[in-house]
Amino acid sequence: MFWTKVFIPTLKETPKEAESLGHQLLLRAGFVRMLMAGAYTYLPMGLRVLEKIQGIIRQEMNACGASELLLPALHPLELWQKTGRDKDLGEVMFKFKDRRGRDLSLGPTHEEIITDLIKNNLSSYRQLPLVLYQIQTKFRDEIRPRFGLIRCCEFIMKDAYSFDQDETGLDKNYQLMYEAYKRIFSRCGLKVLITEADSGVMGGKVSHEFMVEAPLGEDVVCLCPKCKSAKAAKGGSSLCFTCNLNMDQVNTIEVGHIFKLGTKYSQAMQANFPDSSGQLKPLIMGCYGIGVSRLISAIIEQNNDADGIIWPQEVSPFEIMILPLDVTNQALMQAANSLYQELKASGLDVLLDDRDERAGVKFKDADLIGVPLSIVIGKKSIEENNIELRVRKNKSTQLVPKAEIVQFVKKLLV
Amino acid sequence: MFWTKVFIPTLKETPKEAESLGHQLLLRAGFVRMLMAGAYTYLPMGLRVLEKIQGIIRQEMNACGASELLLPALHPLELWQKTGRDKDLGEVMFKFKDRRGRDLSLGPTHEEIITDLIKNNLSSYRQLPLVLYQIQTKFRDEIRPRFGLIRCCEFIMKDAYSFDQDETGLDKNYQLMYEAYKRIFSRCGLKVLITEADSGVMGGKVSHEFMVEAPLGEDVVCLCPKCKSAKAAKGGSSLCFTCNLNMDQVNTIEVGHIFKLGTKYSQAMQANFPDSSGQLKPLIMGCYGIGVSRLISAIIEQNNDADGIIWPQEVSPFEIMILPLDVTNQALMQAANSLYQELKASGLDVLLDDRDERAGVKFKDADLIGVPLSIVIGKKSIEENNIELRVRKNKSTQLVPKAEIVQFVKKLLV
Repeated sequence: MFWTKVFIPTLKETPKEAESLGHQLLLRAGFVRMLMAGAYTYLPMGLRVLEKIQGIIRQEMNACGASELLLPALHPLELWQKTGRDKDLGEVMFKFKDRRGRDLSLGPTHEEIITDLIKNNLSSYRQLPLVLYQIQTKFRDEIRPRFGLIRCCEFIMKDAYSFDQDETGLDKNYQLMYEAYKRIFSRCGLKVLITEADSGVMGGKVSHEFMVEAPLGEDVVCLCPKCKSAKAAKGGSSLCFTCNLNMDQVNTIEVGHIFKLGTKYSQAMQANFPDSSGQLKPLIMGCYGIGVSRLISAIIEQNNDADGIIWPQEVSPFEIMILPLDVTNQALMQAANSLYQELKASGLDVLLDDRDERAGVKFKDADLIGVPLSIVIGKKSIEENNIELRVRKNKSTQLVPKAEIVQFVKKLLV
Repeated sequence: MFWTKVFIPTLKETPKEAESLGHQLLLRAGFVRMLMAGAYTYLPMGLRVLEKIQGIIRQEMNACGASELLLPALHPLELWQKTGRDKDLGEVMFKFKDRRGRDLSLGPTHEEIITDLIKNNLSSYRQLPLVLYQIQTKFRDEIRPRFGLIRCCEFIMKDAYSFDQDETGLDKNYQLMYEAYKRIFSRCGLKVLITEADSGVMGGKVSHEFMVEAPLGEDVVCLCPKCKSAKAAKGGSSLCFTCNLNMDQVNTIEVGHIFKLGTKYSQAMQANFPDSSGQLKPLIMGCYGIGVSRLISAIIEQNNDADGIIWPQEVSPFEIMILPLDVTNQALMQAANSLYQELKASGLDVLLDDRDERAGVKFKDADLIGVPLSIVIGKKSIEENNIELRVRKNKSTQLVPKAEIVQFVKKLLV
């Protein structure tokens, strides 16, 4: 795409509202804008990252045999009253009446809604196991929205739900999700700490949190440097349970949380299935969440330098960008355009900075928005038939013969 | 994908809630379920259609040089008060306070929100023209939600907005969108009537509606059989303005509406840009909507027979399905699986009905869900090395040599 069409309003100064490094970079690089505290617009660059992350999640969920659906955001409050969670969640739920007097809420999560769906549409144990997921907008009335995309009133989650006949089935699905989560976060360029966690308002016995280390993080995790074990810091001893050493405390952001729910929801909502002997049994459930929009911030917290963002390749808004240094030079723009077409035709996501700006502005913005590779097209490169390739991460440059550039780039991006 | 993993709860009987043929088929074929009046769950099959439609829209929008973003659903009410549309829309807007006392609304549309965004992020006339769009969930407190996805309280729209320096620019973008809309609806398998329409609460002078003929439709359009001109029936004469004949009246569903807004929003919200001489001028705007979720219903209304849906190829949840007639027969399932892999590897969307059900049930469900092509795998087909290919539309069958099937199918699907 062309820079002038995409709408990338980069900022020279750091906006006052920015509360963390990730937040600052998201604003400065023109990826998001605040509409009001807790509600953000994803500008085209931010949306592209969101879509890359969602693509990774979909691939890994589908590979687990999960199937995607989309549940409503508007909920009848009565379903929440069946489990009593309208009270447990309290003021975090947006609640209001419609003009016909129905009590509604905006979904902060979807256990009740999907349990009701499956209850009404499952006719045989032969339809089990069943794993369903959605990537959807959630709403929570946070008292203190903070850190840009980290704590929002409107945010995007992936929530998956497993339905099994027995605990063995649940264990199997839980393990599949656990492994998928490790792959998802690794493909997003993140190092995660996995801790056994408190199930809280979700219920159930076993749960694991996937945490990303970040100074702004509001969850504290204890880390043993010797055996690399991690555990939530809430209460309990700060001694490592494996080697008994004193553990370090680090601040973290929660990016994923998986739960063995058991029958909490199916019993409260009478979501039963007829087993092979025809006897009605409550469904055994698990649920598996990822903070999709929050991931954007977590990735930036772990991937940046003084000049801007350094996107891990799989989640970068573009794979490569082209910087023609003088858009008024026709021969130069012709070279830039033909290279653009060639890279696009080979399947790459390409951004061409077609702005009539000084080279300094273009280099600064390129560093800020953090696309992994750039091709610089100046007078010299046309004359010498060599192309200058810049690697964002280490700012190294190298000259590549023009005829070899597509193959060269493709190798770098494997 | 495999039928048993996808979750396709087809129904033998027509649910009482179904108010139209399209609604009935969506429910019976297991594409959607109602959570409450006006709010629907897209089951995996419904979501797949939604994604196919969205894919077409994205392609055609991007081809117009439009760039995609995502605006919040939660709005501060004060932005709506600036144009007075909080009053114009009245009870159709969901309005409530958050726990901090802020007045919020759920977005029924986004003119105010995007105008505010552009106002705050446009620094030069050189950034114009700019066309931005989103595919997003809207909320309207409908007094009488009806016909399944046709009139909902929560629904998915594509809304695009153009920003220009002058009327000539607006005219150009309006025409680009007009042509893109024709392509989008045609690729969705729809015949549309285009009428010049009333701009209503959106404002502006010129607008066009894109209408699909359907018995349940609530908009009436006058059609002249001789010159094929169409106009909205609201008020005015029923004589054709071209040939002066009496026109026929047909019921229609509105699937798209485009508006030349002019400066209605930019003036009310002081969204100005400095022109080439540095003088501040109000942005000239257009807006362009498509009822994305409603399109699913409109497509079904125009594409069905007594046995179920007949999906136009580009929006079908799958391009082809495989029906092994006896899943307990190992050789037969091996043939089905290897064909499945072969078709998948060639880039096709394939559904394999792996249920242990009678052939009659499988054929009935295949007709109901409406995938354009099916391959039937019975004992005979393995013995004779011939494969039976069924075309949903006319129910014709033909035998194709096994070695040629992939090429044959790909030719049919071009």
